Amino acid sequence: MLSPEELDRLNVVLVATRNPLNIGAVARAMSNFGFRRLRLVKPYELAYREARSAVGASEILASAEEYGSVADAVADCTLVLATTAARGREQRQPLRMLTAGAALIRSHMKSGRVAILFGSEKRGLANEDISYCHWLMRIPTSELNVSMNLGQAVAICLYEIARESNNIAAEDQRRQFEPAQPSTADKLERITSELFEILCASGYVNSAAAASSQQKLRCLVRRLNLRAADAETWLGMLRQIAWKLRLRSE
Amino acid sequence: MLSPEELDRLNVVLVATRNPLNIGAVARAMSNFGFRRLRLVKPYELAYREARSAVGASEILASAEEYGSVADAVADCTLVLATTAARGREQRQPLRMLTAGAALIRSHMKSGRVAILFGSEKRGLANEDISYCHWLMRIPTSELNVSMNLGQAVAICLYEIARESNNIAAEDQRRQFEPAQPSTADKLERITSELFEILCASGYVNSAAAASSQQKLRCLVRRLNLRAADAETWLGMLRQIAWKLRLRSE
Repeated sequence: MLSPEELDRLNVVLVATRNPLNIGAVARAMSNFGFRRLRLVKPYELAYREARSAVGASEILASAEEYGSVADAVADCTLVLATTAARGREQRQPLRMLTAGAALIRSHMKSGRVAILFGSEKRGLANEDISYCHWLMRIPTSELNVSMNLGQAVAICLYEIARESNNIAAEDQRRQFEPAQPSTADKLERITSELFEILCASGYVNSAAAASSQQKLRCLVRRLNLRAADAETWLGMLRQIAWKLRLRSE
Repeated sequence: MLSPEELDRLNVVLVATRNPLNIGAVARAMSNFGFRRLRLVKPYELAYREARSAVGASEILASAEEYGSVADAVADCTLVLATTAARGREQRQPLRMLTAGAALIRSHMKSGRVAILFGSEKRGLANEDISYCHWLMRIPTSELNVSMNLGQAVAICLYEIARESNNIAAEDQRRQFEPAQPSTADKLERITSELFEILCASGYVNSAAAASSQQKLRCLVRRLNLRAADAETWLGMLRQIAWKLRLRSE
């Protein structure tokens, strides 16, 4: 899991973002994954003001830093990169898929500051902006539509960077996959008997084929893989149904 | 890599979404990762119309299907799930982290239809909606802010499902957790209804608590992990019991 110090070494750098909703969405995604350092390069003034004054605007927006150039915004970082659809563009830097790139970013965050650049909604990043990058990352999108919404692209990058490191999550998974307390054989057999009685009373099972039916029923009940608590519930329901059928037939 | 047929087995189901920009953002993320099946349950009419008429609105929006209820929207699916922040809520279904859940979804998509429910921006999903789910997924967010933007949550889920990794592990998990030939949601719902009727007739359920009982019952039935052939057998048994109870009460 990334420590607070490590999380604070990652800087999300938005270059010339136009839409206040997008700035807000980026801040929200950062907050979702525990990141706090937002830097804005030449934001459209109005967009920035609107984003900061929006209902529920976060501390992240309140403490965002404004810069006049990409060079200034990344000056204190030891790793600078950007995401790119990387098709038409002439490539000067190494290109990594997000999964591989995120692992490098995480390991860099142990000691050094990282900046990830995101361009404006319409134009993306200029070649000039990209020239500050050590390497580029690609989010593995469908070939048919490589152009992502800014807030969604940021959310996916941050998710992937936070992803592998989340040991608590891994712990969660281990717990989730341990089988729930299974029910005992005698409880399953009581369910089988109760159900068999109900099926006889309701005419589903005829007495000639009773023995083989009960065996089939036994297998059917075992295939349910009932956990202990659920087995108790089912038994309660079956008892009530059986009682009602007996009552009615008297 | 997912084939076009597999991609088309995944249905993104938006329940009562209010904001046209969010509907558009969801469609865009789907397009980025190659998914095409969008279903809307009771969308706000105006939001839906605006989203469809927006500049650059996609084929996905044009071919989106509208449904009157969650039950109808998931009827042909054999795996139904939802994402949840899952803290306050009483848990009735298994909860998996997104990484593990996505692997199960991918492997299910080899043969069966999947529905992923997303709730409205303000209220999320109601317990009633969630009761249709086989299990729930959690995106591993920071504890300090678990509430995600709708478009970003969808984007991250679809990214993780499309992400290539852990196929071997997924195969293992599938064998352990999923029936070979799972039954469809509409079959499970018929079992739930039949059982509910029986429990009312037998006095197990009292009418005052009927709605919450039906939700609990729905979850109980989904936890059985019924295979298609067994579901048919159970439905036959329940119909016979219901018939007998009706006959006796006349």
